Amino acid sequence: MPARIHHIGVAVTDLDESVRLYENALGAKLVHRATNEKEGLEAAFMRVGEGEVELMSPLREDSPVGKFMAKRGPGFHHVAYGVRDIEGALAEARAAGLELIDSEPRMGMHGTRIAFLHPKSVGGVLTELVEI
Amino acid sequence: MPARIHHIGVAVTDLDESVRLYENALGAKLVHRATNEKEGLEAAFMRVGEGEVELMSPLREDSPVGKFMAKRGPGFHHVAYGVRDIEGALAEARAAGLELIDSEPRMGMHGTRIAFLHPKSVGGVLTELVEI
Repeated sequence: MPARIHHIGVAVTDLDESVRLYENALGAKLVHRATNEKEGLEAAFMRVGEGEVELMSPLREDSPVGKFMAKRGPGFHHVAYGVRDIEGALAEARAAGLELIDSEPRMGMHGTRIAFLHPKSVGGVLTELVEI
Repeated sequence: MPARIHHIGVAVTDLDESVRLYENALGAKLVHRATNEKEGLEAAFMRVGEGEVELMSPLREDSPVGKFMAKRGPGFHHVAYGVRDIEGALAEARAAGLELIDSEPRMGMHGTRIAFLHPKSVGGVLTELVEI
């Protein structure tokens, strides 16, 4: 059972400009910025209360986020729910018939354990679980 | 300045099925369900910790959510940030150059004051402010 909305992920064209936008227009605060070479993205984590907005910019056109943007344009990419017990949450999701992208938790960019559920089984919403 | 991620809005094809999915697979709890004839949608508000997922199903193809789904399919529709002072937050957004859909707060489905910012000025993300 999710404890909260942990973050939303947003695909952006220009990371610096987007960080300024979320700071100036929405009062969010940059807490972490990191490059993930394997996933081919640079991310900026903007704090909003207890949650975050993860701004993601592709490093390459053939990266997952690059392909997403080529197809859909910038905008919403995923939502992540914080859960206390990620194995338990994955088991519940599997029992309910959801298709898992990650059948086992893996390490995310925050050093937390994460797993993605397939958007086609969650009404078109790419859904992440994050252990908190 | 937003105090938290208040809710995310998700466009869905079948509201009953989606409520069951969020209950069974993600442990969310249905707290409110309402029809908004003017906006041409039925919504189910699913609690996740302090936040909510607003599942929205169009009542008509020519409603805003109906048109959204015809163009984009089911999935993410908007994010709403909870703010203490919605007039102040709108003034900050306007000062930062954002285009406002609602220049003044109006009543939302929860009986709370809300205002939308135009997605084209927030990197493709339809963004709502909710007074909390």
